[in-house]
Amino acid sequence: MNSNDSRETAADLAANAALLEMAEVLGLSALLDRAAPFTLDEVSAAAGIPDAGALSFLQVLLAAGLVEQGADARHFAPCADMADRRYEAGYLAWALNANRPYIDHAAEFLRAPGAAGGKYRRDGRRVAVSSRWIGSYGFYPGVISEITSRKPRRIVDLGAGAGGLLIHLLTALPGSTGLALDISAAACEEAERAARRAYVHDRLTVVNRSIESLVDDAGPVRDADVVHAGFVMHDMVRDPEVSDGILRTCHESVGAGGCLVVTDAVPYVGNPRERAFSALFTYLHASSMGVRLPAEDQWRAAFQRAGFSDVTSTPLRMPGSRVFVATG
Amino acid sequence: MNSNDSRETAADLAANAALLEMAEVLGLSALLDRAAPFTLDEVSAAAGIPDAGALSFLQVLLAAGLVEQGADARHFAPCADMADRRYEAGYLAWALNANRPYIDHAAEFLRAPGAAGGKYRRDGRRVAVSSRWIGSYGFYPGVISEITSRKPRRIVDLGAGAGGLLIHLLTALPGSTGLALDISAAACEEAERAARRAYVHDRLTVVNRSIESLVDDAGPVRDADVVHAGFVMHDMVRDPEVSDGILRTCHESVGAGGCLVVTDAVPYVGNPRERAFSALFTYLHASSMGVRLPAEDQWRAAFQRAGFSDVTSTPLRMPGSRVFVATG
Repeated sequence: MNSNDSRETAADLAANAALLEMAEVLGLSALLDRAAPFTLDEVSAAAGIPDAGALSFLQVLLAAGLVEQGADARHFAPCADMADRRYEAGYLAWALNANRPYIDHAAEFLRAPGAAGGKYRRDGRRVAVSSRWIGSYGFYPGVISEITSRKPRRIVDLGAGAGGLLIHLLTALPGSTGLALDISAAACEEAERAARRAYVHDRLTVVNRSIESLVDDAGPVRDADVVHAGFVMHDMVRDPEVSDGILRTCHESVGAGGCLVVTDAVPYVGNPRERAFSALFTYLHASSMGVRLPAEDQWRAAFQRAGFSDVTSTPLRMPGSRVFVATG
Repeated sequence: MNSNDSRETAADLAANAALLEMAEVLGLSALLDRAAPFTLDEVSAAAGIPDAGALSFLQVLLAAGLVEQGADARHFAPCADMADRRYEAGYLAWALNANRPYIDHAAEFLRAPGAAGGKYRRDGRRVAVSSRWIGSYGFYPGVISEITSRKPRRIVDLGAGAGGLLIHLLTALPGSTGLALDISAAACEEAERAARRAYVHDRLTVVNRSIESLVDDAGPVRDADVVHAGFVMHDMVRDPEVSDGILRTCHESVGAGGCLVVTDAVPYVGNPRERAFSALFTYLHASSMGVRLPAEDQWRAAFQRAGFSDVTSTPLRMPGSRVFVATG
């Protein structure tokens, strides 16, 4: 019996991810993430379950070490390193839950990707939630510091989803305004609601349109100091006809002092830290989503064709991810 | 960007588990686990996909480091530490894939466990595969060394499933015979086939019956030197009326020189190495399977009521697991 004294890391990560996924299903993620004590009543109310059920779920969180007991039997607090547990769980939830249809039908995707792609789709909510958990340490911190350091007056986020990044940025930059563009009407409605909850709705415009539509109408990116695009440009950069138009529009809009910030992934990064997850990410995009991730030099060439004279690329913590900053 | 130089353990484990799950779906696990080189032709044949598809899947395994390139483009070998990767992936596959219905319907299981239990069932194959991966280092080595050290002439496995443990033991003990008992007809048929493939079918009897049936007919355990039961007795030990009869039958059958070996789990083990996975395992059994795991003293009391005078309990590597050896 080796490793009896050392930690069983895989068992720990698997258990914590399963418990945090259950907490998400029960509507408890916000309580766990706010880094403050909470009560049994709050858990019962958030999950819509009686006290006995809430207590039995809290018992497993306590036993696993994800939650600590508070002053009495009805008070609790998230563990001090919940943010680390959340980040780790993101990779497991993304790989094994959000991508489940691609795993279970791996043979069909290899035999007939087109037909399989039409038949088996990922659950958008599972993708969004797990991506946000990964992003908490995997890419948001790098993107946020990159953008806030430039003190932009106006920020546009292409493929903004539920607006989380922009709302964070506008809260940090109280004099700035922003525009969230997304093709999903449901995501746009969620962004409107989230902006009101965060009291930034008077500074945030939400536009329900495709990124491709910028070629015909540059309105949404006009006057932007920073245009950000997170994990949405890889669909376009391989097709110069589509991407060149979008990127040129961004270049004209941000002008000489502004910049385009693209957070995305490059394919099959080979170093020990990135290789496993980068391989999975690259393979699933190619085999199951019809997306061949552009290599770093293809990203650079696309930005330069659009008129940007200076392009930097910096690795973020999520294996395979890079933040490109295009200026000039 | 912290941890840029250190490994992203959660990302690595998640990626490897997703890739090994895909390989399992493609029918490639046996090739990957045999610790010997293999060819592209073997991969195409096993997966039933054309060479191009097989190559693209091998590319991601190579990129992730799960497979290494052989002498030429059509030859490959599993990575040297595949057994570790397989073991780790077992925890992720069990927690997040095999138990998926319990995660996705966590609220219903808390509100009305009976109704939810009838509606949402686990996929037996996903449970069996992920349990076998965990068991590879998590409990089989401890059980195998415990049993083989006793050089038993006859071994009976209760809840033997597809017979993997018994076939391994009979291969290691060429003078011994065995009996595999399982309530699943499909598992029994698989055990018969596996025994023929391993050339131990002349020494292995397969019996398709419930463990409870031993109370009325002790035939299957008669003359056994060792009776083993892996993760099947916890359903019974809490109900003395059922379990006492089964355990007494085992005690009478093995006699003074034999023993009963029970591999199972105890609830909510609190030490740092075991607490997270033990908490998940305990909670899922109670909330979603109606099984309250007996505590260590309840296990001991049950063995003693059945007539065993000596009981030892040893932790195995899987958090929360124990091997009980009852003799005398």
